[in-house]
Amino acid sequence: MSHASPTAGRSPSEGAAADVRRILEEIDAEGLGAEMHAVIRELYPICRSITGEGLRQSLRRLQRIAPLALHEVPSGTQVFDWTVPREWNLRSARLTAPDGEVVADASRLNLQVLNYSAPFRGKVALEELQKHLHSLPEQPHLVPYRTSYYREDWGFCIAHDQRTRLRPGEYDVAIDTTLEDGSLTYGELVVPGSLSEEVLVSAHCCHPALANDNLSGMVLAASLARMMGSLGPRYTYRFLFVPGTIGSITWLARNEEKARRIVHGLVVACVGDAGPLSYKRSRRGNAEIDRAVVHVLEHCGQPHRVRDFAPYGYDERQYCSPGFDLAVGSLTRTPHGEYPEYHTSGDDPDLVKPDRLVDSLRRYLEVFEVLEGNLRYVNLSPKCEPQLGRRGLYGSVGGHSHAVASQMAVLWVLNLSDGTRTLLDVAERAKLPFSDVSAAARALEVAGLLRKETASFEGSGR
Amino acid sequence: MSHASPTAGRSPSEGAAADVRRILEEIDAEGLGAEMHAVIRELYPICRSITGEGLRQSLRRLQRIAPLALHEVPSGTQVFDWTVPREWNLRSARLTAPDGEVVADASRLNLQVLNYSAPFRGKVALEELQKHLHSLPEQPHLVPYRTSYYREDWGFCIAHDQRTRLRPGEYDVAIDTTLEDGSLTYGELVVPGSLSEEVLVSAHCCHPALANDNLSGMVLAASLARMMGSLGPRYTYRFLFVPGTIGSITWLARNEEKARRIVHGLVVACVGDAGPLSYKRSRRGNAEIDRAVVHVLEHCGQPHRVRDFAPYGYDERQYCSPGFDLAVGSLTRTPHGEYPEYHTSGDDPDLVKPDRLVDSLRRYLEVFEVLEGNLRYVNLSPKCEPQLGRRGLYGSVGGHSHAVASQMAVLWVLNLSDGTRTLLDVAERAKLPFSDVSAAARALEVAGLLRKETASFEGSGR
Amino acid sequence: MSHASPTAGRSPSEGAAADVRRILEEIDAEGLGAEMHAVIRELYPICRSITGEGLRQSLRRLQRIAPLALHEVPSGTQVFDWTVPREWNLRSARLTAPDGEVVADASRLNLQVLNYSAPFRGKVALEELQKHLHSLPEQPHLVPYRTSYYREDWGFCIAHDQRTRLRPGEYDVAIDTTLEDGSLTYGELVVPGSLSEEVLVSAHCCHPALANDNLSGMVLAASLARMMGSLGPRYTYRFLFVPGTIGSITWLARNEEKARRIVHGLVVACVGDAGPLSYKRSRRGNAEIDRAVVHVLEHCGQPHRVRDFAPYGYDERQYCSPGFDLAVGSLTRTPHGEYPEYHTSGDDPDLVKPDRLVDSLRRYLEVFEVLEGNLRYVNLSPKCEPQLGRRGLYGSVGGHSHAVASQMAVLWVLNLSDGTRTLLDVAERAKLPFSDVSAAARALEVAGLLRKETASFEGSGR
Repeated sequence: MSHASPTAGRSPSEGAAADVRRILEEIDAEGLGAEMHAVIRELYPICRSITGEGLRQSLRRLQRIAPLALHEVPSGTQVFDWTVPREWNLRSARLTAPDGEVVADASRLNLQVLNYSAPFRGKVALEELQKHLHSLPEQPHLVPYRTSYYREDWGFCIAHDQRTRLRPGEYDVAIDTTLEDGSLTYGELVVPGSLSEEVLVSAHCCHPALANDNLSGMVLAASLARMMGSLGPRYTYRFLFVPGTIGSITWLARNEEKARRIVHGLVVACVGDAGPLSYKRSRRGNAEIDRAVVHVLEHCGQPHRVRDFAPYGYDERQYCSPGFDLAVGSLTRTPHGEYPEYHTSGDDPDLVKPDRLVDSLRRYLEVFEVLEGNLRYVNLSPKCEPQLGRRGLYGSVGGHSHAVASQMAVLWVLNLSDGTRTLLDVAERAKLPFSDVSAAARALEVAGLLRKETASFEGSGR
Repeated sequence: MSHASPTAGRSPSEGAAADVRRILEEIDAEGLGAEMHAVIRELYPICRSITGEGLRQSLRRLQRIAPLALHEVPSGTQVFDWTVPREWNLRSARLTAPDGEVVADASRLNLQVLNYSAPFRGKVALEELQKHLHSLPEQPHLVPYRTSYYREDWGFCIAHDQRTRLRPGEYDVAIDTTLEDGSLTYGELVVPGSLSEEVLVSAHCCHPALANDNLSGMVLAASLARMMGSLGPRYTYRFLFVPGTIGSITWLARNEEKARRIVHGLVVACVGDAGPLSYKRSRRGNAEIDRAVVHVLEHCGQPHRVRDFAPYGYDERQYCSPGFDLAVGSLTRTPHGEYPEYHTSGDDPDLVKPDRLVDSLRRYLEVFEVLEGNLRYVNLSPKCEPQLGRRGLYGSVGGHSHAVASQMAVLWVLNLSDGTRTLLDVAERAKLPFSDVSAAARALEVAGLLRKETASFEGSGR
Repeated sequence: MSHASPTAGRSPSEGAAADVRRILEEIDAEGLGAEMHAVIRELYPICRSITGEGLRQSLRRLQRIAPLALHEVPSGTQVFDWTVPREWNLRSARLTAPDGEVVADASRLNLQVLNYSAPFRGKVALEELQKHLHSLPEQPHLVPYRTSYYREDWGFCIAHDQRTRLRPGEYDVAIDTTLEDGSLTYGELVVPGSLSEEVLVSAHCCHPALANDNLSGMVLAASLARMMGSLGPRYTYRFLFVPGTIGSITWLARNEEKARRIVHGLVVACVGDAGPLSYKRSRRGNAEIDRAVVHVLEHCGQPHRVRDFAPYGYDERQYCSPGFDLAVGSLTRTPHGEYPEYHTSGDDPDLVKPDRLVDSLRRYLEVFEVLEGNLRYVNLSPKCEPQLGRRGLYGSVGGHSHAVASQMAVLWVLNLSDGTRTLLDVAERAKLPFSDVSAAARALEVAGLLRKETASFEGSGR
């Protein structure tokens, strides 16, 4: 995974938006897709959960992409209404039929053990065993992903086809797990920017053998962290790699002050399947992050979906709880629960397409391009248009029917730059890609026709 | 007409919304529909008008459903820009052809006399008679309903087919009516609530032999009054049974102070035909009553229509006049003027369907359920989600694709309850039925995760 | 071109809106269309530009329609970021092929000389000549309109078909033009009203042999000026006849104070082609002028288009620059660049249809009717409806299904006239034509039920 450092050739007036654009243009899609996908294959067999060695080992693997720090929070720590649970570790879990056939074995597919299963060793009659089996009658070939974090239980997940073939008799259950005081682990990486305001990128890391949900998100977030770390951004970027729900709650409980600095955020998940991009708005509905993502999607040239916030899904549930109400949305491909392989053994590395991973990553970078470049400008020649022709910003022969897009961007930026509107306001109203508008603003600034407005301003003047 | 008193089993935390829900669930649709329809048949032959014995007699019949009080306002009383007219009473009205055939006879169908016709007795040549006949060339089989309240005139309404068959000659006119000082009568019933703010239900009662318009509204309003009277509601409910236009003007002129207490209101009419439900918004357009009715209609599982306010129609014209501007809409089935039988002899009891009457009444009750339960709550655990699992409010095995509606209602109520949003705000945003949201709020309040917000708050925080 | 003076019969309470309505009703469409079209034919051969005798001569011709004043601004005058250029005059321009064939001759079609071409006389080889030729490969039969105002150059515009037939050899170029200090000319006519607030009508006059763009606009604006001059309007009307871009910039630079008085404005262009009417909103988007034009178009009974502002097009670019931000839109038929003959020899007088010219003029007058009559009223009987019947404003026999439009207008005006809403607010909400609403308000005022609200009020109360 590599890209040229873009800060090298940056002129002072260009800023980080142009740097992000340069990273975008220099992406080697094939190479990057292959690299990301290889990491997913490597992580797939590891048995992750909301605590334990599998989670720790996975985060350490991501450290080879970007230098995230690992934090440990002891079991029993109170985090708001919750308590950090005992640490769970799996050594082995096997279910053997009376005839000796191995019905389930976590070493072959770690979904087969109920995640957070208590240890259990013994013979169990089929009737009793059924209470501890989980399967999917409507998807009989697939093994489901099931958890029991907060109610002590043991169990196995198997294909429903297999379950219906089980014969009466005594089954041998051998679940060798530990549930002991330990700690919850999460990863964190901060890319400092010139502003203390932060952009949050959060990926959940607790799912075991599930590739799209959410190895794709973990690898994409780590790759983004690496890229953003290579330039000096305007915002500070915080990347979190947390176990779902309890992880984000733990981070928020321990970092209330830092959380207040988060002005834009995205939860990354399910970014590798072949489906169209999908954006779930923040609870605020039309925050700058929402507008930035929607703008990027509208100009991405692909089908896409935009949905309103709902208090279900991934860790945006916590970031958008009313006591925080952070401007955090979620940019995915097919959302949770909407692809047939979701939370089953069908969500394996083959479901994740290298080119879709890179396509998703591009959109994240394009969103960062908007956030980095979304400045306000003041037209220094606001009465009538300035004479652009003598500054080389307008064609010299007149009479043509249409202005080209770059010329329209120049005219729009001049027309709307009154110090209250941001470039995203301009791009939205002009229906032009942000990068064109941003380039026009830089050209006009160089020509002395525009200056950045740095005084604070409340509200969008669109 | 009967239903169990719901207050008996009410727990203090449940409130009147749950009582209304219980009434709804206990409705015996078939029995209630038959009872209401029987009253309509009984009222149909009575010759009502904006004053007079027919009106009085009809209101007295409604007293057998609910204990409405009758008020008399003397002729000549000034009510804003209007004067209460002389009282009109009909003894008989008959038109006889030269050959002795009875052309019109109010004792057979009271629509046949021009409502408020002056008394007249004499022989009239056909040519002169024509000026006093009203018929419908485009609906030649139907007798129209026509009135002449404020210009003294006499006349008959007949089928156009019959009119075209009239032969020249001297016709015998025998209209035995009186137009004398007397009084205007209206009915009123107040169901006291714990709040002084009022919900108004207003039905016009002046139409003679017309069943859907508005015997259906009179009977529905009386039935509602009886049901609401059986519980202790939060709002005070005021039911008015008034002659159209002059009746509501009279009430408003005599009760200006009381009118200021009306915070929500509905004009009831045309609630028994087979057409879809239709709501006409208040002049304010998006008042709480408008939102409550639209919400109920959107979740009623039937086709329905919502229309903007217009200063034409029924008594909402007066309640929504700019000097009052009350939040009063009108919930009907097919609106006035839009069904072919409107204001004709075709609007007879057969046009009114018992099951549609009950369906309409259900919607009114559902609207009251929303108004009664539309409280604001404060999430007492607003930072991240509280741990619902250990409180029995969340499934213990995780990993399923979708949350069920009741769980979504719990999550939405928690997410949006910041003391500024009402449960209707939550239901609208969550696209969930109000009763689910209301039930979730009660469960969360019992669990100690929510408290009612009683401090006043201006504006909707949606 | 003639019409009766409408002020003669005006009753004081009627106001200028009724006068405009009367002008509209008295238009002799056929006669007026023929007159306007004749002026276009007369102006067509004159070689206009942004300065020079052709422009001056054209404005003098318009003085025969309306008494506009001509202003001269010397070359070299600084106008904001621009400088008034040297004056350009064409005596002759001819391009002759080696074989003696006349390739281009401005005396036959003045588009054939590059507008603002520098003088040049000499023999030029075809290869060199090509750099000075302009043609349209995709419309090979048409001669394009091209200009070079601010970069000194010489050139010819010819049909592409002809260009491809040119044989190598020495061509004779004889461009007898002058580029010397002189002045820029513009026309101006002010129709004083009782208010100092102004309505601006601006037409560009710099295009040579192009009929729809913009001889149609020049003639329409002059005709409007004449009509509005015949009555005593409420607003002051300012008609500007300026060369495009530099002309409006010059006017704005010399009249900054006057510009601040412009509260509504329209740029007139392309008003004679057979296409549907099209309105481009002002930069403000929903200013009163925007609402007035949209209202007129919605009730014109023809297909039409409404578009958002964009900083490209005609002189609205200058009027809507952020330093002025005037409420100026543009009402055209087919917009610039969207008809195939645009800026080519195809835009000749045959493209302009007399009846479309008159239709466009009608819409301008209807917009003025709205602006003139867009007053606020106060209902003097706001509590319930006043009794309209005894004032002759309501039918006496009741029971009909529907109110007629004029009665609905009366009811709407009463219902919404609280002193904050204008008649356009009423017309928009009632979905009734402004003239009906305006007539209803006058009738109610005469009946003593309404009075004009003259106190200032900020904001639309719709």
